Amino acid sequence: MKIHQALALTTVMLASALAFAQAKPEQQIEYRKSAMTVTARSMGPLSAMAKGDMPFNKEVATRHADVIATLSDLPLLAGAYGPGTDKGASHKSDPKVWSEPEKFKAAYDKFTSAAKALPAAAGDLKTLQLALGDLGKTCKGCHDDYRMK
Amino acid sequence: MKIHQALALTTVMLASALAFAQAKPEQQIEYRKSAMTVTARSMGPLSAMAKGDMPFNKEVATRHADVIATLSDLPLLAGAYGPGTDKGASHKSDPKVWSEPEKFKAAYDKFTSAAKALPAAAGDLKTLQLALGDLGKTCKGCHDDYRMK
Repeated sequence: MKIHQALALTTVMLASALAFAQAKPEQQIEYRKSAMTVTARSMGPLSAMAKGDMPFNKEVATRHADVIATLSDLPLLAGAYGPGTDKGASHKSDPKVWSEPEKFKAAYDKFTSAAKALPAAAGDLKTLQLALGDLGKTCKGCHDDYRMK
Repeated sequence: MKIHQALALTTVMLASALAFAQAKPEQQIEYRKSAMTVTARSMGPLSAMAKGDMPFNKEVATRHADVIATLSDLPLLAGAYGPGTDKGASHKSDPKVWSEPEKFKAAYDKFTSAAKALPAAAGDLKTLQLALGDLGKTCKGCHDDYRMK
C-alpha cells in the first residue's frame, strides 16, 4: 500500500469512527446483530442455488452478493465492536473480540475480502460455488473463534 | 418498460419470493427491522455532514450512500412484509401495510428510487444535501403513513 493510499484509508476510518462515536453500546450491539441478520438472509438463497436446491438466477444471485459485499466492511469500520460493547445488550460475541482485537480484525478482514469478491463471481453458477466456498471458510473461521455457542 | 424487461423483472421478483418463501413471520419482521437499523445508522453521518455537524468526507459519504441504496430495494423483494407478518414479533409497521399493499408499495418504491440516486450524489456536499432532502421526504412519507407511533 502506498503512503497516500494509507493516509486516505486512515481518514476514512477516522471519519467513520467519529460518525459513530456517539453510538451507545446497546446501539452498537443492535447494529452488528442487524448487519449479520441481513447478511445471513442473503446467504440463504446463494447457498440454496450453489447446492442446487433452488434454480440459479444470476440477477438474484448478484443482488444478494452485493448486499453481503456492501455490509461486509461496515461493522468494524463503524465501531460496532467498540470498547465497552461486550456488555449492554444480549449478544453472542466472544470476549476474545475485545481481548485480542488484532487477531479478531485479521479474521474479520478475511471475511471482508472474500465477501467483496462475491459480486464478480455471482453471474455464473460455477464461479459462485467457488467464491461461496471461500467465503464460507471465513465465516466459519470467525464464528468458531469469536461467536459464543 | 419493454416486455423483455418486464419479464426479467418478474423473474427476479419470483425468484426472490421463492428464496424467502420459507421465512417465518418472526424472521421477516426481524429482517425488515434489521435492514431499517442498518439504514438508519448510515443516515446518521450523512445527515451530520449535510448539516455541517461533521466534516464532509466523500469516501465516507459514498460508503454510507451505497449501504442505503443497496438495502433500499430489499425488504419488499425479499418478502419482508409478506402475508401474516403483521404478527409474530413486536414491530411498528402499521396495519395499513397489509390493508393497502399497493399504496404501501408505491410509497416504498419512492424511497427506493431516491435511495438509489444517493451514491452518485454523495461525492459532493451540495449534491448530497439535495439528494438527502429528496430521500428524507420519501422516508417521512412512508413513516407518517405506515409506521406506528
